[in-house]
Amino acid sequence: MIIQLKSSLTENDYSVIENNLTIHKFGFVRVNAGKKNYYVCVGKNEVDLRTFGHLKGVEDVFRVTDQYKLVSSQWRIEPTVIDLGNDVKIGNGHLSIMAGPCAIENENQVEEIVMHLVKNNIKIMRGGVFKPRSSPYAFRGMGMEGLKMFSRICKANHIKLVTEVMELNQVEEMLPYVDIFQVGARNSQNFNLLDVLGECRKPVLLKRGISGTIDELLHSAEYMYSRGNDQLMLCERGIRSFENAYRNTFDINAIALLKEKSHLPVIADPSHGVGIRKHVPTVALAAAVAGADGVIYEVHPTPELAKSDAQQTLDFTESTRLIEKLRSVVN
Amino acid sequence: MIIQLKSSLTENDYSVIENNLTIHKFGFVRVNAGKKNYYVCVGKNEVDLRTFGHLKGVEDVFRVTDQYKLVSSQWRIEPTVIDLGNDVKIGNGHLSIMAGPCAIENENQVEEIVMHLVKNNIKIMRGGVFKPRSSPYAFRGMGMEGLKMFSRICKANHIKLVTEVMELNQVEEMLPYVDIFQVGARNSQNFNLLDVLGECRKPVLLKRGISGTIDELLHSAEYMYSRGNDQLMLCERGIRSFENAYRNTFDINAIALLKEKSHLPVIADPSHGVGIRKHVPTVALAAAVAGADGVIYEVHPTPELAKSDAQQTLDFTESTRLIEKLRSVVN
Amino acid sequence: MIIQLKSSLTENDYSVIENNLTIHKFGFVRVNAGKKNYYVCVGKNEVDLRTFGHLKGVEDVFRVTDQYKLVSSQWRIEPTVIDLGNDVKIGNGHLSIMAGPCAIENENQVEEIVMHLVKNNIKIMRGGVFKPRSSPYAFRGMGMEGLKMFSRICKANHIKLVTEVMELNQVEEMLPYVDIFQVGARNSQNFNLLDVLGECRKPVLLKRGISGTIDELLHSAEYMYSRGNDQLMLCERGIRSFENAYRNTFDINAIALLKEKSHLPVIADPSHGVGIRKHVPTVALAAAVAGADGVIYEVHPTPELAKSDAQQTLDFTESTRLIEKLRSVVN
Amino acid sequence: MIIQLKSSLTENDYSVIENNLTIHKFGFVRVNAGKKNYYVCVGKNEVDLRTFGHLKGVEDVFRVTDQYKLVSSQWRIEPTVIDLGNDVKIGNGHLSIMAGPCAIENENQVEEIVMHLVKNNIKIMRGGVFKPRSSPYAFRGMGMEGLKMFSRICKANHIKLVTEVMELNQVEEMLPYVDIFQVGARNSQNFNLLDVLGECRKPVLLKRGISGTIDELLHSAEYMYSRGNDQLMLCERGIRSFENAYRNTFDINAIALLKEKSHLPVIADPSHGVGIRKHVPTVALAAAVAGADGVIYEVHPTPELAKSDAQQTLDFTESTRLIEKLRSVVN
Repeated sequence: MIIQLKSSLTENDYSVIENNLTIHKFGFVRVNAGKKNYYVCVGKNEVDLRTFGHLKGVEDVFRVTDQYKLVSSQWRIEPTVIDLGNDVKIGNGHLSIMAGPCAIENENQVEEIVMHLVKNNIKIMRGGVFKPRSSPYAFRGMGMEGLKMFSRICKANHIKLVTEVMELNQVEEMLPYVDIFQVGARNSQNFNLLDVLGECRKPVLLKRGISGTIDELLHSAEYMYSRGNDQLMLCERGIRSFENAYRNTFDINAIALLKEKSHLPVIADPSHGVGIRKHVPTVALAAAVAGADGVIYEVHPTPELAKSDAQQTLDFTESTRLIEKLRSVVN
Repeated sequence: MIIQLKSSLTENDYSVIENNLTIHKFGFVRVNAGKKNYYVCVGKNEVDLRTFGHLKGVEDVFRVTDQYKLVSSQWRIEPTVIDLGNDVKIGNGHLSIMAGPCAIENENQVEEIVMHLVKNNIKIMRGGVFKPRSSPYAFRGMGMEGLKMFSRICKANHIKLVTEVMELNQVEEMLPYVDIFQVGARNSQNFNLLDVLGECRKPVLLKRGISGTIDELLHSAEYMYSRGNDQLMLCERGIRSFENAYRNTFDINAIALLKEKSHLPVIADPSHGVGIRKHVPTVALAAAVAGADGVIYEVHPTPELAKSDAQQTLDFTESTRLIEKLRSVVN
Repeated sequence: MIIQLKSSLTENDYSVIENNLTIHKFGFVRVNAGKKNYYVCVGKNEVDLRTFGHLKGVEDVFRVTDQYKLVSSQWRIEPTVIDLGNDVKIGNGHLSIMAGPCAIENENQVEEIVMHLVKNNIKIMRGGVFKPRSSPYAFRGMGMEGLKMFSRICKANHIKLVTEVMELNQVEEMLPYVDIFQVGARNSQNFNLLDVLGECRKPVLLKRGISGTIDELLHSAEYMYSRGNDQLMLCERGIRSFENAYRNTFDINAIALLKEKSHLPVIADPSHGVGIRKHVPTVALAAAVAGADGVIYEVHPTPELAKSDAQQTLDFTESTRLIEKLRSVVN
Repeated sequence: MIIQLKSSLTENDYSVIENNLTIHKFGFVRVNAGKKNYYVCVGKNEVDLRTFGHLKGVEDVFRVTDQYKLVSSQWRIEPTVIDLGNDVKIGNGHLSIMAGPCAIENENQVEEIVMHLVKNNIKIMRGGVFKPRSSPYAFRGMGMEGLKMFSRICKANHIKLVTEVMELNQVEEMLPYVDIFQVGARNSQNFNLLDVLGECRKPVLLKRGISGTIDELLHSAEYMYSRGNDQLMLCERGIRSFENAYRNTFDINAIALLKEKSHLPVIADPSHGVGIRKHVPTVALAAAVAGADGVIYEVHPTPELAKSDAQQTLDFTESTRLIEKLRSVVN
């Protein structure tokens, strides 16, 4: 159950509502999200919604049978639109394209890719500066210096950027340079990080865990939403399965189910979702047709020389062709 | 390695070739498929193809590094087209649509569905008369009587039919009534059944195993092809994963990979691939855009009353809408 | 619900019972198993067991809430013991050991292994003559000639044999030479084969499917039991997972759960369960300690030269050591 | 390759070694672990070990073909023993038992369990104060106050404690109260946390990821070891699979493989590994027989009332019986 509050309540109004919730054995959290205030209430009891609708200070009451509440489409039917400024929006019925390298490597690389994006009228660039790597001996990214350079070039070209944050201590320092925080698959249930991202007012692209369920993904989004951040995107990036013919199994079903279950925009990552360069466009197109609000993929001036993910990165020619196909199929 | 033979060889020609293969430590099988004769040769040795190309009776020699040979696109680049007669073809660059109930239930049901197909200009109907069921106490299909009735109504309306064969003993009896034999997911590695289907000259739609790899699927097709049946289709129908939000995980990557690795037509089964009625059309569209040569899905006059698969079966309205969308997106 | 019948009923007694079942909306099957007669009844209705207990001809009535009935420990609490004759029993509280090659290769090989078993007081030998192989070009076994030879040598040495049957047409021919039919993982849901094995009075060792659930395994056993064959064993042989460090993931949990849910003996196959020679004994010991009634593993005079499964086959020294450890830990 | 250094080197000695490594295209990290200094070197080149063995300051050179180096048994053959003081050791050939509640709830609960452990001569207690929970609305643990209380009672009774750390910011504050840090399954690839734990000199019990591979687990341990922490334990706690009859699939194979591939102690968590109370002892015994160096399981005075994991927690009677069985089987 979600109780939406009016704009000004007295301390006593709050007390009366909370007492009533306690009497009906609800757990509850007070949430301020999207400029409104709510109680998110979790309990097993069947209760007549009017019991709460009548209370002073209550604007509306919603029954949400899903275990996640604020991210559920049972509560909010209107799709969430994320506004990055300068007329760049995600989830407004058009397909958002985000492209860029796996890792930010140097100024030249960023500039070349930015030029590629500008030429193709793409508004959002991806690129990692903190890289989660299985081995401690692998390249782990350029860090803050890389991010500052990345941000400077993007700003100069009116490009928004999305980049991965791995640790809650990085959030504050990264904040001025980032348009969208990405939470990676390995951090999809890093609840402390989610708590902190929930507190900040910056859009977040949340990746599904390596073998995370759809339900877990929605609950992880709920972590952030219940702290007040309603600028969230859900990202399907393939799941781990028994099949070894490709890197991950892109879960096309998940696109359909996430769009049904939540009002949040759903982004597809075909690069990790299949992990084979020549098949990335196919998976991207399929995801777009299945209803994804956006596609995020890897592109590099010379994929063969990329410091990571070389085998799943497109070159500019392939990228341009993919953009054209996406636009012809979807919009 | 595949050695293509000329049309008439003497016993001595065969001996010479086989001796040479033995000398080079190749295992080999003589195959007659698609009106031509071949030796399919399996070995670990690197060998100069001209060694065999020069022999009397040899028309051509192909190097195939894949473990499967005859179904590999390394050997045959041209896509296989399956001709069902009356101008019904699969794999010719257009999207083939096959629809029908999970199980054939009675004459009325078949007639209503046939009318629905005719109205929408669909040429192939699916429907099971032998049903594999986890429990011995569940409905196991109408059997041969059902098939005869099914076939009679289809023929009267110029509809081709595809139906599952579960047991090699059924093949001969079913043969006159069937246009395409379907091998179900649980029989995807029933090698004795594949042997027999390889001997008969009837198209086969081979489903991927419940957790079968792409490689296993291609090897199962190779079983049939190496017995001479080159009228084969590969069917992706979802794989078993940890995710419980739907029935199976439709493997959109597999569509792309199968099209790359084999010349055989690839058919998508979105009904089993997601298992949730409202999401079947989404998955069907995605598969079509990803390059599937056909789509097979479940439709029933009153899905709620279907004897099996009720939860994943479309009604006529939904089916008509799906057909329209498929045609608008793909052709 | 299972209704146990008295020894002699009139046609009218049957009619009365069946009418009552129909009235209460039960589906039912008449089963003769273990020298007794039963109705196995499947339905959704809650019903007072006495409704049926009072009827003429009824000896006892059992409530079984599991979807499988005859194999459920809710019905039969006493563990099933399988008597192979000559005092060789499985499921009587002692650990049964079955060992032998993946494939029967020649007379010498069989004799050497039989001598090894005799020396170690092992009473049951495994060995395949019909081999399911992913590729049609691989060795597929010696067939019936191999089985006759295998059987002759075993009989001469008072060894019982277990061997895989792949096709229902093989059953009759194999019957005189076989002590236990094995149903392989790929045939775990070959329902036509299970039907036929259910009709014959010969013990069956049923392997779990490659990614079969515990529930599916029990239902497959129910197929045979409901046709009258109560001499069944359930075999855990590892499941397919994302992990590639070994061949299959041996499911030790399944040993515990199968023992809880069913009265049938549970056999562990550590050879396929891990697929790495040096770890086979470890998994065998763990399974025995977890409550398995038996262990089936692969042994060969020279594993390196075995025609199949070389990498997971023990030699005689390793086998002897394993037998000693198993006996010291379990009995 | 691992280069072990002598105790005192000049800056020039280091330079010479590093120049040689660069010439041979090795990446390298200087590591101080277990009171010795090493270069861990990663590269693709085959090189004669003597090239480096001859250099000044080099004590020994080890070829390690595994991708992980310091945790590999190719480098260190002797099993690692972790000494917690007061004669409590892990990995010394005896089975270590760790037991306690899922979550620390209150003083009474801790005292009762401590008494249970003391009575059974168990030296290590588990208990979470920071709890990772899928839903933000679930109980998330008592936090630092709980830890202080937990630690106080343990110390008073000469019990060592293991508890989960979720965030690197918690490490410093927790340090004085903790004997073993546990890294949970969801943090198994939280590389920033691993870095920090690698810097501190406190034993760590590292859980395998929810669907983490054996290789990933070893690499995560390598993260910590390469920062100097050699007091590490690997914990198998079940993997995510398609099977729903229990919570996770306990990977008994992993026990065997981890013992083979690494010198680190391997701990089994049967509580999460099967997730069903009555089967926890069976899995614990199997793991012990398979070679685990320790077992960690959940126990609570009244499992039914536990705030989390109630369904997989033993009561004192069950726990006592399990301890007896473990001791009778293993030691």
